[in-house]
Amino acid sequence: MAKKPLNVGMVGYGFMGRTHSNAFSQVNHFFDVPFRPVLKATCARDAAKAKAFAEQWGYESIETDWRKLVERKDIDVIDIASPNDTHHEIAIAAAKAGKMVMCEKPLGRSAKESRQMVDAVEKAKVPNMVWYNYRRVPSVTLAKQLIDEGKLGRIFHYRAKFLQDWTISKDLPQGGQGLWRLDVDVAGSGVTGDLLAHCIDTALWLNGGITKVSGMTETFIKERHHNITGKTETVGIDDASLFLARFANGSLASFEATRYARGHKALYTFEINGENASIFWDLHDLHRLQYFDHRDEGRTRGWRSLHITDGDHPYMDKWWVPGLQIGYEHTFIHQVADFLGAVGGGKAAAPTFRDALATDLVTDAVLRSAKTGLWESANG
Amino acid sequence: MAKKPLNVGMVGYGFMGRTHSNAFSQVNHFFDVPFRPVLKATCARDAAKAKAFAEQWGYESIETDWRKLVERKDIDVIDIASPNDTHHEIAIAAAKAGKMVMCEKPLGRSAKESRQMVDAVEKAKVPNMVWYNYRRVPSVTLAKQLIDEGKLGRIFHYRAKFLQDWTISKDLPQGGQGLWRLDVDVAGSGVTGDLLAHCIDTALWLNGGITKVSGMTETFIKERHHNITGKTETVGIDDASLFLARFANGSLASFEATRYARGHKALYTFEINGENASIFWDLHDLHRLQYFDHRDEGRTRGWRSLHITDGDHPYMDKWWVPGLQIGYEHTFIHQVADFLGAVGGGKAAAPTFRDALATDLVTDAVLRSAKTGLWESANG
Amino acid sequence: MAKKPLNVGMVGYGFMGRTHSNAFSQVNHFFDVPFRPVLKATCARDAAKAKAFAEQWGYESIETDWRKLVERKDIDVIDIASPNDTHHEIAIAAAKAGKMVMCEKPLGRSAKESRQMVDAVEKAKVPNMVWYNYRRVPSVTLAKQLIDEGKLGRIFHYRAKFLQDWTISKDLPQGGQGLWRLDVDVAGSGVTGDLLAHCIDTALWLNGGITKVSGMTETFIKERHHNITGKTETVGIDDASLFLARFANGSLASFEATRYARGHKALYTFEINGENASIFWDLHDLHRLQYFDHRDEGRTRGWRSLHITDGDHPYMDKWWVPGLQIGYEHTFIHQVADFLGAVGGGKAAAPTFRDALATDLVTDAVLRSAKTGLWESANG
Amino acid sequence: MAKKPLNVGMVGYGFMGRTHSNAFSQVNHFFDVPFRPVLKATCARDAAKAKAFAEQWGYESIETDWRKLVERKDIDVIDIASPNDTHHEIAIAAAKAGKMVMCEKPLGRSAKESRQMVDAVEKAKVPNMVWYNYRRVPSVTLAKQLIDEGKLGRIFHYRAKFLQDWTISKDLPQGGQGLWRLDVDVAGSGVTGDLLAHCIDTALWLNGGITKVSGMTETFIKERHHNITGKTETVGIDDASLFLARFANGSLASFEATRYARGHKALYTFEINGENASIFWDLHDLHRLQYFDHRDEGRTRGWRSLHITDGDHPYMDKWWVPGLQIGYEHTFIHQVADFLGAVGGGKAAAPTFRDALATDLVTDAVLRSAKTGLWESANG
Repeated sequence: MAKKPLNVGMVGYGFMGRTHSNAFSQVNHFFDVPFRPVLKATCARDAAKAKAFAEQWGYESIETDWRKLVERKDIDVIDIASPNDTHHEIAIAAAKAGKMVMCEKPLGRSAKESRQMVDAVEKAKVPNMVWYNYRRVPSVTLAKQLIDEGKLGRIFHYRAKFLQDWTISKDLPQGGQGLWRLDVDVAGSGVTGDLLAHCIDTALWLNGGITKVSGMTETFIKERHHNITGKTETVGIDDASLFLARFANGSLASFEATRYARGHKALYTFEINGENASIFWDLHDLHRLQYFDHRDEGRTRGWRSLHITDGDHPYMDKWWVPGLQIGYEHTFIHQVADFLGAVGGGKAAAPTFRDALATDLVTDAVLRSAKTGLWESANG
Repeated sequence: MAKKPLNVGMVGYGFMGRTHSNAFSQVNHFFDVPFRPVLKATCARDAAKAKAFAEQWGYESIETDWRKLVERKDIDVIDIASPNDTHHEIAIAAAKAGKMVMCEKPLGRSAKESRQMVDAVEKAKVPNMVWYNYRRVPSVTLAKQLIDEGKLGRIFHYRAKFLQDWTISKDLPQGGQGLWRLDVDVAGSGVTGDLLAHCIDTALWLNGGITKVSGMTETFIKERHHNITGKTETVGIDDASLFLARFANGSLASFEATRYARGHKALYTFEINGENASIFWDLHDLHRLQYFDHRDEGRTRGWRSLHITDGDHPYMDKWWVPGLQIGYEHTFIHQVADFLGAVGGGKAAAPTFRDALATDLVTDAVLRSAKTGLWESANG
Repeated sequence: MAKKPLNVGMVGYGFMGRTHSNAFSQVNHFFDVPFRPVLKATCARDAAKAKAFAEQWGYESIETDWRKLVERKDIDVIDIASPNDTHHEIAIAAAKAGKMVMCEKPLGRSAKESRQMVDAVEKAKVPNMVWYNYRRVPSVTLAKQLIDEGKLGRIFHYRAKFLQDWTISKDLPQGGQGLWRLDVDVAGSGVTGDLLAHCIDTALWLNGGITKVSGMTETFIKERHHNITGKTETVGIDDASLFLARFANGSLASFEATRYARGHKALYTFEINGENASIFWDLHDLHRLQYFDHRDEGRTRGWRSLHITDGDHPYMDKWWVPGLQIGYEHTFIHQVADFLGAVGGGKAAAPTFRDALATDLVTDAVLRSAKTGLWESANG
Repeated sequence: MAKKPLNVGMVGYGFMGRTHSNAFSQVNHFFDVPFRPVLKATCARDAAKAKAFAEQWGYESIETDWRKLVERKDIDVIDIASPNDTHHEIAIAAAKAGKMVMCEKPLGRSAKESRQMVDAVEKAKVPNMVWYNYRRVPSVTLAKQLIDEGKLGRIFHYRAKFLQDWTISKDLPQGGQGLWRLDVDVAGSGVTGDLLAHCIDTALWLNGGITKVSGMTETFIKERHHNITGKTETVGIDDASLFLARFANGSLASFEATRYARGHKALYTFEINGENASIFWDLHDLHRLQYFDHRDEGRTRGWRSLHITDGDHPYMDKWWVPGLQIGYEHTFIHQVADFLGAVGGGKAAAPTFRDALATDLVTDAVLRSAKTGLWESANG
């Protein structure tokens, strides 16, 4: 059947610009969805970079001002893959222009920004989604299925962490391309918005709402050379962020994110302990899920290492054959597939802007608690 | 810089047709190579299937007779992704037509077929390559680098196995689409050509030539329904194939392949033990390499689990960021990238047809030894 | 050389009575220490149980009143392996009687009790030790060595947890033999004193003092049948206990203990991240230590799984040959060996009562913080 | 109840002398068996060494001539823990003297020696056992239970290996204490009798008889200094030994042993693949068993890592609590417990001398096949 074209206007050409472009390019090779994304235009302030990116990925045209992109009649969806400080303005403008809006996470630099973005897309009634891609790792999606089916029973514990080690060197500067995540004005926060936000999004999805948190943050390296000002400046981001939490369902949780955990590149892990079963997942082996079921016969009861490559695992019937794993970028392809399916069916594609706001309310509470030393409500 | 187009004519639309098409589609998104593959035509006997495949992957045209494809002037490279019994005829015709030839493994159904194919491409002086894709898993390529740098020292042992479990059921038929691997006339052999061939290709690449083998094969299920004849027929393939071997460098080896190892989907593993260091790899976690170096200080000496996602790992500077793994299909993208680079530079791209013939000489010797009960030479 | 006998008076015949008795029985088979422990007397209120225990382990005599044991002239060391509510009284009496005192952990039911016990042994100047046995797992001792040698550099993070799942059933009663750990009057607290105390002892040893904590506790099952009163009674212990902490060296930490983590029997783990290297350990594979050293060459840098069975690993030259692991009870044998060596050399054997008090100050602060919702000082 | 004393006469004071002595010392602390082993006498040619050993382990007396030990009226069981070349003579003499005989593995240096030893004990009708201790690793015993219950179904594959790396250095001498395993006259063979014999004993126990084998051996270091002659002498042992095999039940197998696998200290592993389930075990983590059951629901089917520390696991109700592992030497304690139980019940304790002969028939066939290059029968 002929698929309806969906014209994409992309803002950003960095790491996330690549993952999103790849997702739009690949989705029709593997998924049967009602739309065929067309890479209509990409936008970057630097025309040479925009051109190079367009050539590499097959974008038909370029823009150097996102406002022009938003105004173009031939664009159906604006995809925001630029740094955090641009999300708020672009998303609101795109919504006002009646475009569908896809936005890289975190939604805003604060819950305040995010709330305005939610208001904009809801008022404009445009399809919207935030790229919390880890929901679409097949093993994570399977975890969601198992939990929703009640396999775990009453939940007692949730624990998640996201460990990296790439900013340990004192010689690493802050700011500018590739390093804007260390510049608090651009990023909004450090690991709290960059890494903890992923952990929280998954947690809210799998285990429901968080009621209160007690947080602790640290900036280990206090000053760094700033690439844009050219001076040594105080580092405003948090290098590490930990918190304890209570979920509405009564379970207890601990969360941690850091860029100072030597030996870990992108070790996002979560574990959830229920009355009858437990689940553990780890981004460094994202194609596996660890599952323990207490109902197994006693002598042969143990943690099962599930190799999530079978046809009955989420999304995997679309890929290769059992035993052959997929990787990181596939999560974005799945997200586009689900978005296109949802739009085609007139449904919302989670996580919506509103879903992502819930995460920002928690990160805001964590940062607030780290300052006050008190337990803070995560309900905004 | 503008890239030269390279027109691809694809034969086959199954599992391998998909991995190859994906590789051609993706290579320019990630690799800086001198050619831009153009999906010019795909070929299948069934026009409807050819059309559907062309639409899914963006092939510009279809053919239903591979002979016509081979004769087309607008085709630069013939890629053979159809069942084993077609490799010989198509490859030789393509070579005669002056096309570059890429052929799915194993090269022929026997060393005899393969030798004729080698003669054809060498006589025609056309670039040629066989899709032994596992050489291009970044962790396997790293193994090759470490061995070539002499990190392991004198080699004592090599052991490899490829374990699957998908044919255990007696109710599984043989023959026809998706099941031609169980039909000896089409496949040439069972796991020996399908799985052991992968193990042997890697072994010859990493550890040099094999001199002699002692083999053992078994067909556990003796009769199966045949999808094409409609009758219950004797199964001609080997379900399991094991052999002991001597390498020219004096090392001892054991190899095994089976489709009757319950619990394993595609567990290709190899280990190589040298005087100073050892390496272990496993397809189920293909993004890792296990490495032991005896030169480490005694108390902290142990097997290192290398997460092959860093920029200084082979191919990985082209993908994402440290910690984020790639998957199975990327090996084919790497192979296309290397092929295009080699062709652009006027060099051969390994494994050539000649390289693949060496593997077939070993598989032939294994099957011969399994019949004679004697050690057989693997030198053809 | 002839070894000096050291007469042991044991209080308790349960789980810990067995591990201690085994340690005294075995130490001279494997370690060259200046004393030969003699199992002189064991004490239990129930004479039949005391007799059975004495027969099983070879104790020469029994007592049914610990006060008599403490008064006996032929006893050199009183070993307290009875429930927590007996530690305080027996230890102080033993010290007053001039006996060496070994006490199972936690030292007291509260820091207040512990401080009085410290005062007693220090006033009496008697050798004293608390059985925080996990310091003597060879892999943990190796971790201490590596840290003390500066291999890790500046420490950023410490995280530990102790997960069990044996009290999830609502039908499990509290109180009485084997279940006194669920009776708050006997145990003092729940997992905080039972499990977290182990994590804290190791942490203080490896990473120095803790300055402040933010804690959270929960009792999931609020009422249980009480074996002694025969009634359903409110459960006074904490089932789960988590806390965030700051160490004096500036590192951030999270700790957790629970008996509601389905799938984990005794999963005590800790990880410590330093500027140059990291260490991870896990009680379920206690014979291994995971070590990551950033100074390794980039391509072959990875977590090393050290199999702690070599002669140059702590304690292991006394056991078997490389590759052959030891188990849980060996930690107690090591502790006796170190105690006897220290006593022979006129030195203190860590952890002393004073060392153990430091742990109780932290556990007290955690319980206090869980009530106040505030960060609490852990310095007593 | 009062236990009957069983007087032990021990020959040998090396590695195995220690494991056996420990087993006799410990068995009554943990197991309820009808006998109480008494360490009556130990025997070594060197009186000083015998005395030191007796003092360490509590033997009541010493002998310097095993013939005297065998003749002593106060000895019930002769335990042979001395090098392989002494087994034959001592065992036959002990049987003739009417003693129970326990013998370290392998039984003889060849099947010929072993057969005579079997004849002797069977003629004398004395209880006899060979110390193939790995049968009594609880995880291995559990494997046996699961197989015997039919959990695996029809068996297709068995593979085992025993990898070490301690003889790689050319500077290691052969012969003399601690190194007699490298002296072919003393040991009988190299890794075939030392390591493969363990693999074969387990295999025969778990999977039944082996019918034929194709073997390959190698001696990597051809000459070594001999500690006894003081000269450089040809090395007569095999450094590596591999074989393919057929079991009587139709399953295919591969076996390997080597002391040249860098990175492995005592990596004995076996895997068995059945129609419905598979099992994998590994001596480096002997407290675990890997189990895969195809009957699990598809999405959550995976290899289960069983932590063999629960009360319903073989032998484990006698030790500590769930989660706390035991080690290597416990396997000998279990073997003594089973031996004493069998003797008390008038039954044979496996593996008997006859059971061990079956293993030697296989090792003989492997060595023979390595010479002839032919498949050899393993039925003697």
